[in-house]
Amino acid sequence: MTRLTCDISMSIDGFVAGPNQTVERPLGEGGDRLHEWAFSLASWRERHGLSGGEANPDGEVVEESLRATGAVVMGRRMFSGGEGPWKDDPRSDGWWGEDPPFRVPVFVLTHHARETVAKQGGTSFTFVTDGIEAALEQARAAAGDKDVALAGGATIAQQYLEAGLLDELQIHLVPVLLGDGVSLFDRLGLGPIELEATRVIASPSVTHLRLRVVKDTLRETGGTP
Amino acid sequence: MTRLTCDISMSIDGFVAGPNQTVERPLGEGGDRLHEWAFSLASWRERHGLSGGEANPDGEVVEESLRATGAVVMGRRMFSGGEGPWKDDPRSDGWWGEDPPFRVPVFVLTHHARETVAKQGGTSFTFVTDGIEAALEQARAAAGDKDVALAGGATIAQQYLEAGLLDELQIHLVPVLLGDGVSLFDRLGLGPIELEATRVIASPSVTHLRLRVVKDTLRETGGTP
Repeated sequence: MTRLTCDISMSIDGFVAGPNQTVERPLGEGGDRLHEWAFSLASWRERHGLSGGEANPDGEVVEESLRATGAVVMGRRMFSGGEGPWKDDPRSDGWWGEDPPFRVPVFVLTHHARETVAKQGGTSFTFVTDGIEAALEQARAAAGDKDVALAGGATIAQQYLEAGLLDELQIHLVPVLLGDGVSLFDRLGLGPIELEATRVIASPSVTHLRLRVVKDTLRETGGTP
Repeated sequence: MTRLTCDISMSIDGFVAGPNQTVERPLGEGGDRLHEWAFSLASWRERHGLSGGEANPDGEVVEESLRATGAVVMGRRMFSGGEGPWKDDPRSDGWWGEDPPFRVPVFVLTHHARETVAKQGGTSFTFVTDGIEAALEQARAAAGDKDVALAGGATIAQQYLEAGLLDELQIHLVPVLLGDGVSLFDRLGLGPIELEATRVIASPSVTHLRLRVVKDTLRETGGTP
């Protein structure tokens, strides 16, 4: 069965976005810093309609994840761009534009039922109102033999982790202390969950930590796999 | 001038000890997990009066830090073993025993003035009541041309970081989510502080991230170097 993975950039102090997120600044104050390592990569730029950029080991890590992904699951705020004024407007097409970088079916967790939106380049947004397991099931069906990637945000990632549904986490650890913002794990309060570090690739800009969730430990500490 | 460094084991979710610390369990619930990678090392065992153990790249990282250290600064709770009943008893000799693993002069930040205590093997505990800068100054004088190592806990490390006095942080990142406990950085609220990843060494048990504090960024964001 296809795996559920999550690639996410995090500061040394555990933040995946800065404080005070807005529509204009969906990553919050200082949050862009977490993605700087990716902005210069050819693989990232191509997905975002930009030319040029570097090919390096960081780019290979990105390419590998993109190649492995057959479908995406994301939270409502990730779709609509943070805590903006349209966050409760079910008609919004979000802030991803006409040619979103996903290029696979995307399943958006929301409370507002609406029709699937087809975009250019293979991206579609399907809105799922009956919970994280239903969204994962639909994404798995769409992914074929590829993985389902969790695009965030932090709250959704925590929900899948607590439910024992997350198989692998790849943290792109950025050498900065943000000091405040959106914490990836906060105090999950689940008791210890073991991870297995299956690969570490480091460059001066970022350390890529691939971590497999050891689900037996989740079971012992009260998760519901 | 001698540098101020801090070597510390941290979980992926940012904890350096588990919750509910006691004298019997100074690392809190689940906190021993953070140091498992070190317990089996010959270099760690030798310092703690135990024979045997492994020599491997993790051990070389430990050896390197021990060799570089000429003096140690620690907080009162680190000296006395957590939130135990003796934490306010200035007569306590702490829980480090007669042959502590430091083998260099140790400067303990405390509010209780008392005489220096000499232990076996080169360790002495000197109690400093006039603040973090005074403790660092005394430690620097004792360290000669070696580094001063900050032994913790988290609050003391944050104070030195905020004061612009910490030069290097080596995080031993352990693949586990503790879920709760003592957070190394919590929400420092200082605004972004840049770090420079000067070296990353990874084993299946632990990833050693050596991070230089870029003090210019600290100055810009309100620190007081």
